[in-house]
Order: sequence, then C-alpha cells, then structure tokens
Amino acid sequence: MNEYLVLSKEVKEALAEGVPVVALESTIIAHGMPHPQNVETALAVEKVVRENEAVPATIAVIGGKIKVGLTCEEIEYLGEKGPEVIKVSRRDLPYVVAKGLDGATTVAATMFIAAMSGIKVFATGGIGGVHRGGEKSFDISADLQELARTNVAVVSAGVKSILDIGLTLEYLETYGVPVIGFGTDEFPAFYTRKSGYKVHITADTPAELARIIKVKWDLGLNGGVVVANPIPEEYSLDYEEITRAIDSAVLEAAEKGVRGKEVTPYLLAKVKDITGGKSLEANIQLVLNNARLAARLAVELSKL
Amino acid sequence: MNEYLVLSKEVKEALAEGVPVVALESTIIAHGMPHPQNVETALAVEKVVRENEAVPATIAVIGGKIKVGLTCEEIEYLGEKGPEVIKVSRRDLPYVVAKGLDGATTVAATMFIAAMSGIKVFATGGIGGVHRGGEKSFDISADLQELARTNVAVVSAGVKSILDIGLTLEYLETYGVPVIGFGTDEFPAFYTRKSGYKVHITADTPAELARIIKVKWDLGLNGGVVVANPIPEEYSLDYEEITRAIDSAVLEAAEKGVRGKEVTPYLLAKVKDITGGKSLEANIQLVLNNARLAARLAVELSKL
Amino acid sequence: MNEYLVLSKEVKEALAEGVPVVALESTIIAHGMPHPQNVETALAVEKVVRENEAVPATIAVIGGKIKVGLTCEEIEYLGEKGPEVIKVSRRDLPYVVAKGLDGATTVAATMFIAAMSGIKVFATGGIGGVHRGGEKSFDISADLQELARTNVAVVSAGVKSILDIGLTLEYLETYGVPVIGFGTDEFPAFYTRKSGYKVHITADTPAELARIIKVKWDLGLNGGVVVANPIPEEYSLDYEEITRAIDSAVLEAAEKGVRGKEVTPYLLAKVKDITGGKSLEANIQLVLNNARLAARLAVELSKL
Ligand SMILES: [Mn+2]
Ligand SMILES: [Mn+2]
Ligand SMILES: [Mn+2]
Repeated sequence: MNEYLVLSKEVKEALAEGVPVVALESTIIAHGMPHPQNVETALAVEKVVRENEAVPATIAVIGGKIKVGLTCEEIEYLGEKGPEVIKVSRRDLPYVVAKGLDGATTVAATMFIAAMSGIKVFATGGIGGVHRGGEKSFDISADLQELARTNVAVVSAGVKSILDIGLTLEYLETYGVPVIGFGTDEFPAFYTRKSGYKVHITADTPAELARIIKVKWDLGLNGGVVVANPIPEEYSLDYEEITRAIDSAVLEAAEKGVRGKEVTPYLLAKVKDITGGKSLEANIQLVLNNARLAARLAVELSKL
Repeated sequence: MNEYLVLSKEVKEALAEGVPVVALESTIIAHGMPHPQNVETALAVEKVVRENEAVPATIAVIGGKIKVGLTCEEIEYLGEKGPEVIKVSRRDLPYVVAKGLDGATTVAATMFIAAMSGIKVFATGGIGGVHRGGEKSFDISADLQELARTNVAVVSAGVKSILDIGLTLEYLETYGVPVIGFGTDEFPAFYTRKSGYKVHITADTPAELARIIKVKWDLGLNGGVVVANPIPEEYSLDYEEITRAIDSAVLEAAEKGVRGKEVTPYLLAKVKDITGGKSLEANIQLVLNNARLAARLAVELSKL
Repeated sequence: MNEYLVLSKEVKEALAEGVPVVALESTIIAHGMPHPQNVETALAVEKVVRENEAVPATIAVIGGKIKVGLTCEEIEYLGEKGPEVIKVSRRDLPYVVAKGLDGATTVAATMFIAAMSGIKVFATGGIGGVHRGGEKSFDISADLQELARTNVAVVSAGVKSILDIGLTLEYLETYGVPVIGFGTDEFPAFYTRKSGYKVHITADTPAELARIIKVKWDLGLNGGVVVANPIPEEYSLDYEEITRAIDSAVLEAAEKGVRGKEVTPYLLAKVKDITGGKSLEANIQLVLNNARLAARLAVELSKL
C-alpha cells in the first residue's frame, strides 16, 4: 500500500498520536468552483479545521501517488489545472494511479482513501445521490454505495435539489446508512436548510454525534454516516426561489432535449445564472460550516 | 461489544455448549399485534421453540442495551408500551443504543444482532420486501440488504402481497440470496400458501434445509437464506378473497391520495377490516409454525 | 472447503507455483451452444489458453463436487447432457452441492469459485446485465453483484444488446466496477464492436491491463473488473443489421405477449434466426479471442 499512498508528515504524525484529522476532497477544487475561489476556499477550509483543533488532510492523486494532506502548492496546482484534472471516483482510482496521472477525488474516492489512511471524519459540500429520473436511468452516484460500505462520517450540507432527494434518502435507508440531522429534523438541500424531507435521527452537539458514530462502528455496523449540516441561515438561498429555479430548469432541459449526463451540468449552470453569484457564496460558506463541524466531531471522536 | 450486548444466562450457555438457539424479533411484539395478543403470542412462540428442543432468544433494545433472550417481564414491558417503542432497523441501532432508549428490532436489525451473537436461525412472520411501486419510489426494505450480507437463516411465511412479491424475488436473485420453499415449490404470501410465484429451491425436511444452509456458509457464500414456510392449510386465508381485498384496497388508496409511507399501514388496516379477525389469527398461527420449523432447523444444524 | 472443492492436479500445481491460470465457465457448454459445437468450442478454448502460456481451468459442479479444471471426459459429459444440467448462479450453488447434483456455472458462480480457488482471470463470452425493462422488472443479472464484490478480472466481449447496455453500465458505475475497453474506447456489444456507449478506461496491451488490475487489488478496492474485448472485425456482425433485428424482435415479443423470463430466450432465438448461422460462428470466435487475451493477461499478472 505504501507504494501508492503518501501521507504528509503532519497527517502521519497526527494519526499516530491520535490527534483528530479531517479529510477533505479535491473535486470541489478542480471541478466545483472557478479559479481562484477554488484555491482560496480550499485554504480557508483547512484554516477552519485548524482553528477547531484538528489537522486537515486534503486528498487527491498527483502523478499517480495518492496524497493525503496536500501542500499549499499542490492545492494551487490542482486549482489552476481545474476541470482538466480527471474526476476520480472508486472505479477510476486504479487507472489514475497505474498511469501516474493527476486526479481530483470525489466523495466516494475520498471516503475510500480516508478509511484506508485511518481517518474517520470527512467534510465536503454536498454528497452525490440519485439523479432526477434515476429510477429510469439508473444514474445513481457511487457515493451512495461508498456510504453503504466504508467507515467514514461525511459532514455535508445534504443533497442538491437538482437530484431526487426523496429517492436518495430511500436508497440510503435500504442500505442501512444513518442520516443524522445536526440541530435539525429536516434534511437540508445544500443551498437551503429545508428540503421537505425528514431525517430519522437528530443530534444537537458534536459530542452526541460522536457517541452515535462510535457505537455504530463498535457494534460492527460497517459503513458510513451522513451528517447533514444545514447551511447557516444568513447564507442560505430562498427555498421557494431555488425550487422554482430548479423546476423551471428541469422543464427547460426536457424541452431542449438535454439528456443523460448533460442534465446535471445544465441544471447547475442554470441555478448559477438564476441566483446570480449568490450560489457560489453559499457554496463557500456551507463548506466552511461543514469543515468546522467535522473538526469538532473529530475532536469528540478522539476523546472516546 | 460486551458494553452494548447482553446475552441472557440461558442463551449464553446454550451458545457456548452448542445447544440450538432460535432468534426472535420484537417489532412483532411492539408494532405487529395488539395487546395482549402480542405478549401471549411472543410467549407461545418461545414455548414452541422449547418444545422443539431449542432455546428461544427474543431480541430487543432495552434502555440502550441490546438484549438477546428477553425475560417474560421484558416481553410484557415491550408489549404494553406497544407502538411508542421505536422501530429499529439497521440504520437506527446506533442511535437507540447511544441514547439509552428502548427499541423493537425489525428483521434486519434482529438478523444483525443474531449474527453478532452467534445465532444462525431466526423465526419471524414475514420478511420485508419491495413495496408496490418500489421500482419508482425506491421503497425497498432494509431486510433485503441484510439478507444479502448477514449469515442467518430466516424462517418466514413469505412476503405479504401488499408488497410486490415478484420484484422482491428478483431483488433477492440479483443479490444471490437462496429462497428455499419448505415442502413447496411456490413462494407463500404470508396469509396464503400461494402467491403465483415459484421458489428456485425446495427442501422437504429440516435436515435437508440444514444441509443446504451449512454448505452455503462452509463455501464462504456469505449472506442470509430465506426459508419460505407456508401457513398451515387450516389457518390460511382464501387466496382469491385476499387478492381481491388487497387489489381493492390499493385502488382505494390511490383514489384517496394515500401516498408514500402511509400506503402500507393503510393497506394492512384494510386487510384486517376485510378479513374480520381472521388475519390476526392467521398471523399468530403462522408465527408459531415458523418457530417450530426454526427450532427443528437449529437442531439439525447443531448436528452437522 | 476441501470437502466440496476439487482442483485438478494440473490447476493445483499451477496455482502453487504461480503459473498463470485462466478460469472458464460451463453454462456456455451446457446452455450456450448446441452439441457438438459446445464441446468442440470448450476444448478449442482450452487449447488457446495453453498456446498462450496459461493453464485452463474449466469450472462446473459434477455430482455435487465443485470441479476446477474439468477433464475432457467431463466436458464431453456436460456437453451431451446439455440444458438439462442445472444452470447454477450464486444462489443455487449450495443446493446443487448439498444434493450431489450436476451444475453448469454462470459468470457469477464461476467468478466466486475462481476467487475461492485463487484464480484471478476468467474468460467468457458475454457478461449478464440489466435486462431491457429492468428498471421496471428488476430483472438484473447476479453477475453484476458478483462483479461488485469478487476479485476476478472477467474478459468478455461486452453485453449482448438484447440487454439494456446503458443501464448495465450505470449499474456498474454505481458499484465502482472498472470497465476497461481493450484497444477501444467503445463498449462492445458481443456480436459487434460498437454499442453506442463509451468505456471510462482504455488499455492497449495485456501488460497495461495487468498493471491497472493489480493496483486495484493492492489498494484494497475489492471487486471484479470488466475487461471489454471487442469481437475481431472479421467475425463481427453488422451493427445496423443486428440492431434492427433485435429491435424488431423486441417489438414482436411485446405484440405476442411474451413476458418476464421468456423474453430473453425468445430474443436470442430470434437473433439466431435472423442472422442465420452467423451468430453461432461469431460467438465461437469471440470466446476464443477472449481466452487468448485472458491468458495473456494472466501471464502479465503473474509477472507483477
Ligand atoms: Mn452516474
Ligand atoms: Mn422503506
Ligand atoms: Mn434475472
């Protein structure tokens, strides 16, 4: 394993000494935001993790090495290269490593690498899910199967409502994945605190979260946990507005014959248009908010 | 594990000495039948297991402890509290344990706890499955994924036809779960011996069942087994009558706009209305019948 | 395990000494081709494996024993018995072994047995997939779940277009299974080199394939790999012709009310009618071609 996996000195020492560590993904850097906001956000996220007493471990593949704990230079490198960096999910990882390529890791691949490294907590923006129409297209993110099997707690702001949130929650239920609302009994929808769907578990403090997660793994109930952390009120977009925007974008996509893999980027672009720059700012703020909670959760887990 | 899991003295000794043990679930006590029939049935089921030379281990979470082998007092306690006890599937178990709550375990959670305890055979009424319309709603019981991965033989009277039996059997096939008809080549539909669907394996004696199940696990083919044990002829409801009842209930639910999670309880209530008290009596009798077969199967497995 | 599993002397020695071995399935012998072409092809496939420096291990259940490395007599025996031999997928294996029966192993069962025996590469014709309409019928081959969990590289000519290739590829993506095109960026459709669907990884040499596969398993990314090896140009059927043939057969099946499990055999028979004998010849040639690549892949893997 050492042949492929390179932990930074800081991350390696933290793990060896039981210091809390938070994994961070790199798709958001290369594919999720424009440059230079992507690099600024990635560095700000690391700073928030540190301020909350944990060590950040941003994860990516660089030149075929799986790096856990990128340097600032590596983050800048990925941020500049942007979307030309291969997006790496579970199925792509062997190829990118074997060929010595660069890769930006999705939620699924980052979870896998975190678990392989011994990191239990991971902060991201939103998780993947069942796409709208996924009951017909089978377009279902590999993130959900990773949650079904890999022992990592993923702190996110929920699922974007361009996906089918109801089907996503049913899928997670079938696979036995706990979905824990942090301070809320409603599953959040990324840009908004509301979604119209309930969570089945609520926790109000990082300590409470940590206790539930520890019991899960102690019992041998393998697999991940979705920690659903709503975007802070002051940065959230308006629920009615975003719902209308997405509904009209979905309709427009259907009318224009946009299909298959093109639908999601189309909807994301539309949402961005409609909300002006507000969606990027919301995205940045919710990631920072998730990093904060993830660090506090990692701290609490390290005490148990 | 000992911190959370409490085996009764009798169950612990039986497992240590290789005495056959049969796991029993508690959702049927708290959610499946009215009081006091729920408690009477639970105790009668335990008696049947004993009469057939095995030790019963009714499973539930009480005050955050996972109890394997409830006392009569604990069964009475759950039976009186009834539906206010949390229904605990795989995803809910960490929460209920961490918070020190009571929980009635579903087929999925009971299978998991049985396997964790070293119990190989479990008797229940019917297993969960794919709900009608599940190809659109993704409403698919976590019982099916538990069967895909956890090494326990589940003796049931099949699947209630308020679910989609055809889709349930396809799902189990995809995940490689054996469905063994006991003395029948037709998959039973809980209240009836018929369903219109075939099983792919038939076994005629507990010894034959035991041999197939032992080979499965010896080969490293991990996961559960569905033992489909038809309700005894004399207690079974009329197939045409129940089919008509369910079909009309499904239609009525659609007309009244009953949706999502409300459909199943609605259909169950309707079936009860239409069949008068006969459905409760059938339910009790099929559970006793399953307990008998489970005990005989556990005895045969203990000889191999 | 030794009680049920019997490796031929040659296969046992090869595995002990690190000599490359290629697993071969037996459903193609008993169910996939008429006699005597089935036996001739099975022996020709073994010959091709040997010519490419690997040891063939044809797998089947005979009299309840799982045989890895059939003798010529055993291949002839299965070929003569033909479709009356039970088709054995993962769920059927315990039954056939426990009852001392004969069984022809599918892709799923052969993968499982190969992995149990320590064989890493397996050559077949085509893999199973999501059936047309599978999003409604849940008719999804157990081969796909076996690919999701069992560490074997399966060399095939893709998926027959009587199945839904798009849904099959989405399903594999969700479960994190790499689909590697050998010398092509298009997923092949068994009789044809084209399908209209892309693969996400291309490899151009057996050494490149071997390196990707080794990295996958070294990383602990458990599960299979689909090596998609297009039928040689000179034997491939015409894409437009086969597409038209299948589309019209699908329509005809719907009009005649052919349903459920009867649809696939109906479509296969129609394709055979329409293509005259060409489809059988194509089938034979693509299997030989897959055996060749599988042997070369096994050789490369044995060097790493
Ligand atoms: Mn997808
Ligand atoms: Mn459900
Ligand atoms: Mn099928």
